[in-house]
Amino acid sequence: MSTVKKLSAQRRRISLLLLDNKALVDSIINQQPTDTKKESLAVTENKAILDQTAEICQLIAEWHSADLADLLESLPHDERLALWRLIPIKKRGRVLIEVSDNISDGLIEDMRDKEILKAVRPLDVDEQAQLSRRLPRNLLGRILTALEARQRAQLREAINYDEDRIGYLMDFKLVTIRADVTLATVQRYLRYRKTIPDTTDKLFVTDRKNTLIGELSLAAILLHPPQTTVSAIMESHPLMFQPEDSLEEAAGAFERYNLISTAVVDSKGKLMGRLTVEDIVDVVNKENDSHLRRSGGLTPSEDVYAPIYKSVRNRWAWLAINLCTALIASRVIGLFENTLAHLVALAALMPIVAGLGGNTGNQTITMIVRALALHQLEHGKKSYLLLKELGVALVNGLIWGSVMGLVTYALYGDMAMGGVMMFAILLNLLLAALMGVLIPLGLMALGRDPAVGSSVMITAITDTGGFFIFLGLATVFLLP
Amino acid sequence: MSTVKKLSAQRRRISLLLLDNKALVDSIINQQPTDTKKESLAVTENKAILDQTAEICQLIAEWHSADLADLLESLPHDERLALWRLIPIKKRGRVLIEVSDNISDGLIEDMRDKEILKAVRPLDVDEQAQLSRRLPRNLLGRILTALEARQRAQLREAINYDEDRIGYLMDFKLVTIRADVTLATVQRYLRYRKTIPDTTDKLFVTDRKNTLIGELSLAAILLHPPQTTVSAIMESHPLMFQPEDSLEEAAGAFERYNLISTAVVDSKGKLMGRLTVEDIVDVVNKENDSHLRRSGGLTPSEDVYAPIYKSVRNRWAWLAINLCTALIASRVIGLFENTLAHLVALAALMPIVAGLGGNTGNQTITMIVRALALHQLEHGKKSYLLLKELGVALVNGLIWGSVMGLVTYALYGDMAMGGVMMFAILLNLLLAALMGVLIPLGLMALGRDPAVGSSVMITAITDTGGFFIFLGLATVFLLP
Repeated sequence: MSTVKKLSAQRRRISLLLLDNKALVDSIINQQPTDTKKESLAVTENKAILDQTAEICQLIAEWHSADLADLLESLPHDERLALWRLIPIKKRGRVLIEVSDNISDGLIEDMRDKEILKAVRPLDVDEQAQLSRRLPRNLLGRILTALEARQRAQLREAINYDEDRIGYLMDFKLVTIRADVTLATVQRYLRYRKTIPDTTDKLFVTDRKNTLIGELSLAAILLHPPQTTVSAIMESHPLMFQPEDSLEEAAGAFERYNLISTAVVDSKGKLMGRLTVEDIVDVVNKENDSHLRRSGGLTPSEDVYAPIYKSVRNRWAWLAINLCTALIASRVIGLFENTLAHLVALAALMPIVAGLGGNTGNQTITMIVRALALHQLEHGKKSYLLLKELGVALVNGLIWGSVMGLVTYALYGDMAMGGVMMFAILLNLLLAALMGVLIPLGLMALGRDPAVGSSVMITAITDTGGFFIFLGLATVFLLP
Repeated sequence: MSTVKKLSAQRRRISLLLLDNKALVDSIINQQPTDTKKESLAVTENKAILDQTAEICQLIAEWHSADLADLLESLPHDERLALWRLIPIKKRGRVLIEVSDNISDGLIEDMRDKEILKAVRPLDVDEQAQLSRRLPRNLLGRILTALEARQRAQLREAINYDEDRIGYLMDFKLVTIRADVTLATVQRYLRYRKTIPDTTDKLFVTDRKNTLIGELSLAAILLHPPQTTVSAIMESHPLMFQPEDSLEEAAGAFERYNLISTAVVDSKGKLMGRLTVEDIVDVVNKENDSHLRRSGGLTPSEDVYAPIYKSVRNRWAWLAINLCTALIASRVIGLFENTLAHLVALAALMPIVAGLGGNTGNQTITMIVRALALHQLEHGKKSYLLLKELGVALVNGLIWGSVMGLVTYALYGDMAMGGVMMFAILLNLLLAALMGVLIPLGLMALGRDPAVGSSVMITAITDTGGFFIFLGLATVFLLP
């Protein structure tokens, strides 16, 4: 843990230096040239600022790119930019890969084309492919021409895939061997190579046409006598993916079978690359992060330190949708102005009916969205599910409807009003359960993501429905 | 991909056989004895049912425990129990590890003590420790006595840790070597051992007192000449954890540094066990799952196929809380009955003010909870954040407040009412932003999880506050 603690102390020190230190931040941003030619700290004459700048540079010199990315994300806009200017160009490519998309855009904007090219060069092809989507369009061509032929072909291949496909994250660095050699030969070959790519837990066995015919784990090489041939001990039915397969599916397989890496082959079984558990962990985290944001009505590009105008623009759409649904609900209430004028107490009670419905509907939707995400409903009985949710709503509606009916009677001394309250709550909970099941299943059937927008839809329905049911019942039963 | 497709076809077939086939399900549940002594299918005479049962047994015979767990989770209660009865006892331990807690409870209930002991025996110590928390209390002693002394000590150790600590998932199976031997000796030792534990990417180098002094990756063994000594090429400052460290922190380090396994040592640096990336992937998934559920007001123990009474019990608390907050909001409206009696139109407009506030507050909270989870606010300026959110609310409030003010004027032809609407929306959005920042930060400062309950609190505040602000302004400015 000492490494982690040391890192954390260094982080705190850098934050301390930068935060509320406008002089330092401004000095770095103004004087640290974006131009790579003159990387001197010469311009300022303030000794304290020079010392502080040098201290930060020294602290981050040994840092891992992921730690730099974390620190950048945790700083407000100006401080972030100052730190960014202090990170050496050749380290920046990896940092850009690690920060989230919304933040990398701002950092890339701060760099000149030449710097970007310099930062991208040391990256692996799969990393270049990921980054190239976020770079200014004209730079991609320049990156491609700077590569050697084979890498250029790989990068062209990788940028063709959508972000949710395996091809997007496929790693081209791997070790292949032939099936008819001995382990001694394999080991000689590895020693001759001197390095193997990170996260290599197995070698891929291919024939002369590059068709994948098996896998050999590093452990197997170490555990068997040197004279054993590869074909005798290789796994000859390995799990393999194709680049157009979905990353979500691959993530499931990695989790299920505890994989470290798998082969990626084309439709003819020829080895193209591999997928590693690191990529999968990143996928899972990104997936969950975007889920968390969407459920709250934030776009994926919102950053906690985003400037006000960006945040306003990001949240615009959801507020507008909310306003429209609220207006519709309001018009439903407007229909019953006559009823409300006779019985003002109804105005105080109607939000309760709507609120309980919204709560029930959201509980149902959360459960169904989760079950859909875990593929638990694929072979299940959907009608059973609907009946069950209606059953739960019936029980809850009777219980809480009765409670609220009694409370209403106690408050207003009107038995009929209590009865209307009870039935309105019961009916709205049933409506909530019904739509709570049908909305996500319907979105799914239409090929849409059931997690997006279903919460807004259910709330709109239970609000409008709750007002209509309650005021409608009141109009029929309570008006003279 | 062929393995995945074959599996999926088999899944479909089993679901098809079990679902809507009450005769088969009942026959299995009644006749397949829970008693392990007689594992015959003898009792029924119906040929079709016998054939179907045999087909299912044959299909699942080769399945991985994770796939069995997935299928069990996707089946309704009776079908799930029937399939469970068909899974051989010795395979059940691993399946219990893989299914989620809420489902394993039901499956364990279905087993006799003797069966449970038999199922637990083949598991690794860390898996036994995980499972033992969910077993009937009296069984733990019997499991402990059945183990050999060393394993018993390890299990005792492991069950001492909370579920969010590394000790809880620590794996005791690992390979240690000495620093002064050559790689040739290491390789001879490994061949002599014949196997190494799954997910082994490195060996741990210890001294005679079992103190961890380094790590040697399998790749390094293969890449260096056999006469090299371990000490010359080992990583001598490895990242290591202690069992009381948090799993969340470990998950961060695994993601950041792309780790496959790390050492776990005690306070004196003695090697205790290791943590592997598989455990980490499980942790990340569980974390996200429980987050998803909590945000919707579901307890972690709710299962999509849970019987109605269980679901009612699970959702009870949230509905009750919702009812209380709705009642308070309702009483606030009740305060203004006189105002409402004069101007019934207010009743139709007030939910809009409350709704927009709730939307804004939840957006802010989602962002802050996320930033807290990612440790982005640790060194950040909280006052900056509050001002920024208030700024966003001010802009949005002016824009949408004006829009709704105009709509109100258009609908009711009352300029003053439009003005009240505009100011009420503006003030409620400011309230929402203020509380949206303060609630999660406050919960965090109190040592509580900011993700739990903050959404309910903000909605309660923006509802009550919205009604109060709107009706209060109306009382002052609109009443004659």
